[in-house]
Amino acid sequence: MRILSGLQPSGRLHIGNFFGMMEPALKLQHEGDAYYFIADYHSLTSVHDGKALRSYVRELAIDFLACGLDPDKCVFFRQSDVPEHCELSWILSTITPMGLLERCTSYKDKVARGIQASHGLFAYPVLMAADILIYDSDIVPVGKDQKQHVEVTRDIAIKMNETFGEGLFKLPQPRIQEATAVVPGLDGQKMSKSYDNTIPLFEEPGPLKKKIMGIKTDSTPVEAPKPVEGSSILALYKLVASQSDYDAMVADHLNGGVGYGDFKKRLLQGITDYFAPFRARRDEIIADKGYVDKVLAEGAEKARAVARKTLSRVRDAVGLG
Amino acid sequence: MRILSGLQPSGRLHIGNFFGMMEPALKLQHEGDAYYFIADYHSLTSVHDGKALRSYVRELAIDFLACGLDPDKCVFFRQSDVPEHCELSWILSTITPMGLLERCTSYKDKVARGIQASHGLFAYPVLMAADILIYDSDIVPVGKDQKQHVEVTRDIAIKMNETFGEGLFKLPQPRIQEATAVVPGLDGQKMSKSYDNTIPLFEEPGPLKKKIMGIKTDSTPVEAPKPVEGSSILALYKLVASQSDYDAMVADHLNGGVGYGDFKKRLLQGITDYFAPFRARRDEIIADKGYVDKVLAEGAEKARAVARKTLSRVRDAVGLG
Repeated sequence: MRILSGLQPSGRLHIGNFFGMMEPALKLQHEGDAYYFIADYHSLTSVHDGKALRSYVRELAIDFLACGLDPDKCVFFRQSDVPEHCELSWILSTITPMGLLERCTSYKDKVARGIQASHGLFAYPVLMAADILIYDSDIVPVGKDQKQHVEVTRDIAIKMNETFGEGLFKLPQPRIQEATAVVPGLDGQKMSKSYDNTIPLFEEPGPLKKKIMGIKTDSTPVEAPKPVEGSSILALYKLVASQSDYDAMVADHLNGGVGYGDFKKRLLQGITDYFAPFRARRDEIIADKGYVDKVLAEGAEKARAVARKTLSRVRDAVGLG
Repeated sequence: MRILSGLQPSGRLHIGNFFGMMEPALKLQHEGDAYYFIADYHSLTSVHDGKALRSYVRELAIDFLACGLDPDKCVFFRQSDVPEHCELSWILSTITPMGLLERCTSYKDKVARGIQASHGLFAYPVLMAADILIYDSDIVPVGKDQKQHVEVTRDIAIKMNETFGEGLFKLPQPRIQEATAVVPGLDGQKMSKSYDNTIPLFEEPGPLKKKIMGIKTDSTPVEAPKPVEGSSILALYKLVASQSDYDAMVADHLNGGVGYGDFKKRLLQGITDYFAPFRARRDEIIADKGYVDKVLAEGAEKARAVARKTLSRVRDAVGLG
């Protein structure tokens, strides 16, 4: 069973990304033949700064490797190392009805939110179909908002099979990922870059302390019991603490006598401890000059071999070359 | 000065194509550094039959070589041998405003004529921009209907240069080809596959004779003078005969005493003689097994070296790889 997962490099990762996206993605490598790609062709629709994009790709690769992605277990590569995605995307375009893309709500939503209506944004589902179909993927784990794009992929594959011969493409299945617990940011809203309330993954100790100690709290006095419902500190602590440590913090909230400063210190310790092994691994990776390049080069080689095989089958069927 | 010309393989060529498109295209090889490509990626938007497309490509290559395309003088290649076109097309897409494509009249016209609105048809100008920009083309000879697409190419190039650095792309100039004389078909209308009135280039003698002898004429008796204005026979004869032979046929029309059957025989002879050297060259090419493949392979190698260099400059600027 081949599982395909695209990772969009669009900036420094935060712990909201870690629990919302990275952890579920990393589980996949134990479930089947997992292909992970860093979707830099897609990122071009939002990042128009070459240096920035290259550094986002690198950071994403380092962070995934640090957090447990095992390049011996899965195929981990950069999309732009496999330009066959673009060629297949063009081929698929030529049988993709405009109406199919015009109905995609994700494009319409983005434009409605003020994002510039570029052709790349509009054509995004076709490149995504190529990403998926070129590896004969069985399963594509996606959030609810991406489910429609996997359906578009299936529609395109069905149309290609009808036009050029049954069996040309395998039909992938979406696997809708359960809504993960919303990770609150420093201001209590959902942690998100656009709210500027994030705790970056692998933040340095100084700024990390400053951020945690600056979490907004109410003015309940030290001795009084404190609200458990809607507490960002507790919600974040639950993610990183052991059950007993978490229970103790809940009890201290209910009983009173412990101040927010103390809770924040425990949270800081919790986060620091939770990510310590990843941080140590990250330091090793960074110290090992050339390691990331080597991993991505090996991944690209494996991915490209599969992609070339599929593309050659498709070129043959449609009459190219 | 680099001149780029795309040739669309969409069926057997006829003598309307020869005088309307091939002759003007072939002149370019004497004017500069000419690049000719057989636009099979583009043809996918209209040809959905792999075998047919492959044979159209081959026929087009043979016919152009037979009619004087000199692969030592120009670069002659098949578009799908240079998949870098597709990759550049995606990159350009990401900064191409949807409005720019929505304003293209050629897409709207095609859809209005009942052609299926595929995404490939809509995205056509972006791939065409990639075709042009990837070779740092100076001049793109086009018919009037394609002028807007070269303007789109310039707009995309300007936007890329603004976004990623001046000088990234050279701005190409369209050269609008003078409206060539309309070549009449067997029924007097413009010769066109869609009117089923064509004289195929390199038609076999038997069917050629049948077609010429079947040209519609009026019922003027042999001895009477015949109308010169609007005569398909004369218009076709003008293209293939010497000035004195043509003048003699005009005189015979004006004086009367010569029947249409005789004029048709002269036209048949004229066409046969005119294309005889090309036909002989064509037979040689077909007899020389592997010649066409060799020419296209060498062309692809030259084109690809240029395309790769441009693409590497672009990937560098936008942050890929």
